[in-house]
Amino acid sequence: MCGAGSRARIGYAQILPEVRMKAPIRVAVTGAAGNIGYSLLWRLASGNCFGDDQPMILQLLEITPVMERLNGVVMELVDSAFPLVHDIVATDDVNTAFRDADAIFLVGSRPRSKDMDRADLVAANGPIFVGQGKAIGESASRDVKVITVGNPANTNCLIARANATGLDGSCFSAMTRLDQNRAVGQVAAKLGVPAAQVQDVFVWGNHSDKMYPDLRKAVASELPAMGQLDLAWVREEFRRTVATRGKAIIMARGASSAASAASAAVDHMRDWWKGTNGRIVSMAIPSQGWYDVPEGLVFSFPVTVDASGTISVVEGLEIDAYTRDRIVENIQDLESERSAVAELI
Amino acid sequence: MCGAGSRARIGYAQILPEVRMKAPIRVAVTGAAGNIGYSLLWRLASGNCFGDDQPMILQLLEITPVMERLNGVVMELVDSAFPLVHDIVATDDVNTAFRDADAIFLVGSRPRSKDMDRADLVAANGPIFVGQGKAIGESASRDVKVITVGNPANTNCLIARANATGLDGSCFSAMTRLDQNRAVGQVAAKLGVPAAQVQDVFVWGNHSDKMYPDLRKAVASELPAMGQLDLAWVREEFRRTVATRGKAIIMARGASSAASAASAAVDHMRDWWKGTNGRIVSMAIPSQGWYDVPEGLVFSFPVTVDASGTISVVEGLEIDAYTRDRIVENIQDLESERSAVAELI
Repeated sequence: MCGAGSRARIGYAQILPEVRMKAPIRVAVTGAAGNIGYSLLWRLASGNCFGDDQPMILQLLEITPVMERLNGVVMELVDSAFPLVHDIVATDDVNTAFRDADAIFLVGSRPRSKDMDRADLVAANGPIFVGQGKAIGESASRDVKVITVGNPANTNCLIARANATGLDGSCFSAMTRLDQNRAVGQVAAKLGVPAAQVQDVFVWGNHSDKMYPDLRKAVASELPAMGQLDLAWVREEFRRTVATRGKAIIMARGASSAASAASAAVDHMRDWWKGTNGRIVSMAIPSQGWYDVPEGLVFSFPVTVDASGTISVVEGLEIDAYTRDRIVENIQDLESERSAVAELI
Repeated sequence: MCGAGSRARIGYAQILPEVRMKAPIRVAVTGAAGNIGYSLLWRLASGNCFGDDQPMILQLLEITPVMERLNGVVMELVDSAFPLVHDIVATDDVNTAFRDADAIFLVGSRPRSKDMDRADLVAANGPIFVGQGKAIGESASRDVKVITVGNPANTNCLIARANATGLDGSCFSAMTRLDQNRAVGQVAAKLGVPAAQVQDVFVWGNHSDKMYPDLRKAVASELPAMGQLDLAWVREEFRRTVATRGKAIIMARGASSAASAASAAVDHMRDWWKGTNGRIVSMAIPSQGWYDVPEGLVFSFPVTVDASGTISVVEGLEIDAYTRDRIVENIQDLESERSAVAELI
């Protein structure tokens, strides 16, 4: 420990021996002044994602017109006096936001307006993710973990990855955890058990209404879930409920599902950061040809993560005709999105 | 453990031996579909407040006209698949919301409209807190911990407490932690250190622009804060910044400070639930005459909380003329609010 005379600018870890902290990590969030950002930042700052003993520097990106609103968000983060928040950077410059970042949440995207179909949406977001991908390649840590939340998430991730020179594809992922969590919630409600009792539910494919929530390995109260559920319910009502949940939330709440999306992003990144301890979860990652998904497509697979943060696709699952149809449908969906942005990748 | 044959409806704690859980507590939140509620619920459900091993039943109260919006919030909580959330009750009936509650967050209140002054606000909220106080007295756990967040928080708490027959005054508190956290944030920013290095800042009085953030015992980087700060800054800019912070947030963000208010509520309740481990924090509690504050006024004092959840006012602090003036000003403020609701208490 330092004596009182030398402590003017000594480091954090030296100051508080009773809370000996790790070195701070750099966590970047884009779209930080948006609704998902407003939920996400407090979850991150509280230690929910990276752990109670992991300080962080938050690096927040927004587009220039909403920097004042981002400033208000930063004021509130300061006003929350989080012990784990070491510093906050607010910027409209992508390279500043991603500089040495260890974890990046790509939340901001151009939302769908009334007259846009999905192809328009894909095309409108393409240029954003070209620029962000380049900046990630130039500025982020060489083993950064990137989660893409902003829609169309899988293809936005594909574009960012393609433009991030010098980074391995294993640094990139897109979020289907919200679909997984929604599926868990529906199964738990149907069986009348807490969500904690439902495990190993996962989602295949694209984060779109085509995604396929697979319950064949799911366990509820330590027994196979499928043995406790009606197949017709699983294939119809359950799948439809999960696929259309976003619209149902908007109808009920009068606003889109921000807090549950942020919560899923925390779950995804926490599992990537700390490992899943053998549990199966869903992450959309660049395919290496698993289950005949074309190489490079950002596709949601059942995965486990080990304690060092390495994601492994769960291989060898039986693919029956129904599952194969769902996977093929998602491949077609994602190939069509990829065509719409072919000149960007 | 039970054998497989008997597990149809056996309890949660029995099902998951690897996460042996405590019995769930009941946590009630009023105004649950509002903006502070939307931030608060995810912080509670994630384990931030009551601990990672403490399951809970969320009991959410709203007024009848916004029950559909509350339903949307519940849908999103279900979609977050929180392992600690055992059940969720959504209701517009106060007794249902407070039934057997172990912790209550009184967040909902009637917001100030343009033509209301503070006396109007106090009078408009009075009847709400009469009804809620009665229901807490009838329905809540006998050692419930109540935090009042909705403004005017101190006087709303006074009314609830007065109407909660059969409960001790020590069950009631109002939140000045947001003021404290704002003060910590300002000191940390001024000294260029993380908030974790600033401790033992506390606030006297009313959660209004009269509140007095006291830095005389504050420690920054293990040294007295006042020795590192200019007295004129502390008495003028610092105090004004903390007192007017709510308006500054609205100006910047275009919306009121919901996430930082929720964060302060989590901090307040967590400290009450688990103890402060010797640190001094601010809580507004019914005065027992400490520092010549009239008995019964809900007044923010410097307090510590022991591991059993007993709040103790830090006594024997030197009260210089400046501090005495601030305390007297707050007593007058709160006595005037009390007069406005005299027939309700």
